[in-house]
Amino acid sequence: MILGEMALSTILATVQDELIGVEAKLSQVSEQAYEPLALALQALLDSGGKRLRPALTILASRFGSESAEEAVFAAAAGVEMLHTATLVHDDLIDDSRTRRGNPTLNAAWNLGGTVLAGDYIFAQSAAFFAETRNPRVISLFAETLKTICDGELRQIFSHLDWTQPEKEYYSRIYSKTASLFAASAESGAVLGGAQEAEVSALREYGRCLGMAFQVIDDVLDFTGSEGVMGKPVGSDLRQGILTLPVFYFMQQHPGERERLRSLVEKHAATGVAEAVDMIRQSDAIGAARDQARQFMALAIAALDSLAAVAPRQTLHELADFVCTRHL
Amino acid sequence: MILGEMALSTILATVQDELIGVEAKLSQVSEQAYEPLALALQALLDSGGKRLRPALTILASRFGSESAEEAVFAAAAGVEMLHTATLVHDDLIDDSRTRRGNPTLNAAWNLGGTVLAGDYIFAQSAAFFAETRNPRVISLFAETLKTICDGELRQIFSHLDWTQPEKEYYSRIYSKTASLFAASAESGAVLGGAQEAEVSALREYGRCLGMAFQVIDDVLDFTGSEGVMGKPVGSDLRQGILTLPVFYFMQQHPGERERLRSLVEKHAATGVAEAVDMIRQSDAIGAARDQARQFMALAIAALDSLAAVAPRQTLHELADFVCTRHL
Repeated sequence: MILGEMALSTILATVQDELIGVEAKLSQVSEQAYEPLALALQALLDSGGKRLRPALTILASRFGSESAEEAVFAAAAGVEMLHTATLVHDDLIDDSRTRRGNPTLNAAWNLGGTVLAGDYIFAQSAAFFAETRNPRVISLFAETLKTICDGELRQIFSHLDWTQPEKEYYSRIYSKTASLFAASAESGAVLGGAQEAEVSALREYGRCLGMAFQVIDDVLDFTGSEGVMGKPVGSDLRQGILTLPVFYFMQQHPGERERLRSLVEKHAATGVAEAVDMIRQSDAIGAARDQARQFMALAIAALDSLAAVAPRQTLHELADFVCTRHL
Repeated sequence: MILGEMALSTILATVQDELIGVEAKLSQVSEQAYEPLALALQALLDSGGKRLRPALTILASRFGSESAEEAVFAAAAGVEMLHTATLVHDDLIDDSRTRRGNPTLNAAWNLGGTVLAGDYIFAQSAAFFAETRNPRVISLFAETLKTICDGELRQIFSHLDWTQPEKEYYSRIYSKTASLFAASAESGAVLGGAQEAEVSALREYGRCLGMAFQVIDDVLDFTGSEGVMGKPVGSDLRQGILTLPVFYFMQQHPGERERLRSLVEKHAATGVAEAVDMIRQSDAIGAARDQARQFMALAIAALDSLAAVAPRQTLHELADFVCTRHL
């Protein structure tokens, strides 16, 4: 973990100054808010997020010819705030009590406070995007937020639906995760004045990186340890969310399908633990890891059409980092 | 009630065509959304909202020289969506089961679905504002949403705080209600190309109308009947929210202060019912009504500096309507 973090700061050394600028913008928010909210916000921002999305926005802005530093900072702060807002509401919805090893806001605050804090952070994200004064980027923000909510809603409505096709999974993780990676890259590219073909390539890179990121996250929910993950293992299955390892397990072991289903649906905590074990020891994990590597390869391939400048190399390294850290 | 509704449609006859245009925009949203969400959205939009805020945007747009019909429709749809999103989250937070006589979304859906539906509606509101392509109006949307969340958070943190000063009440109702009325008028004025002095006057009109509207709502929570209100009487006090009639009652009857407090805090439902009765029969209700009339007078006074055109007369009638319907 610590080695991973060090590697990331090395990869992102060329955007370090800009990330400090984004951090300053984020801190101003908590300085201006109502005191209890300000304290909660600062704790959220200090809780060890890796700022992958803002880094993506900054790196993508370097492919164009325009110098739009202020607008790029605003968009980078906007994507991080949007991400933070979704975490606040997700943790409430999932009743998660810890994230990155820290207590979640819903562990400390009541329902109303947590809903409203998330809403406020969405509003601040909108305010940051508004600062870009770029209609395309502002619309992209709004559409991405719709896509994320849509994906999360589909996830809720597909709880314990054992008949859903595998493509539903990809559609859900695009909506809930990859769409924001894609939008982070696209906003930077647009604001930096990249050509349309470059904007598309950078958006596609972001999308594939986000898909890889989420598949890995879903694998780690089976293979990780609570200490490293900062949240309990098997939490997706416990919430009735079927992820890629579950789909692969059912494809590889059709005879075990009913047993898996019955363990998850009928036997509460011990049943889920047994189901997690079954899947962890199966080939489904390896198959899911392969899928993550395929998304990583697609992300890197998307970079091919871009000029071979330094930021392209950094994006390549970033994809390697995201995918190899835990695989 | 029916007489009131008829009077409103008469007042708004001159903006009827535009309101139909806004309605069409709102309906498109539910056509595009994920099916369960689409059905829920259509039910929300059909549930009898009076579209006061969009009407305000449209009327305010008529003081300028610019023809910006599409942008005005977008902003008008945006303020209605923003209002709808806050209702969805408020009803969840307050555990309200009915609104306007219909079941609330949280009565039908679980926590996660309701939080995400509200988030989606916020996103759609942002998308509508983005359509205006006017940076000032888009920033106004984001800042207003922050102000609303801030007001709602302050309301939660001031629950059963019997020592809060009366000015806290005004600050809260500005944030949670009047800020959106002000922003509705301001967006219309800006998009219509009104001069800065006119924008300020229209914003001030919206703010005062919103303050009057909320004071009346808070009075009705004591004097209304569940049949007319579509929600139980005394719900603010039951939730520990102290509104203007409570402040006035405590000022007029300092000797009864402790009894009121003890009824509300210690005796659950019967205690609250008794407290509501005490206040309903006191002069506090009349004093709160006077305060609403003062805000109405300020709203009308704000119109003085505007040209004596037809929309000014309509805004005058609208203020009369809002304030006399239930006073």
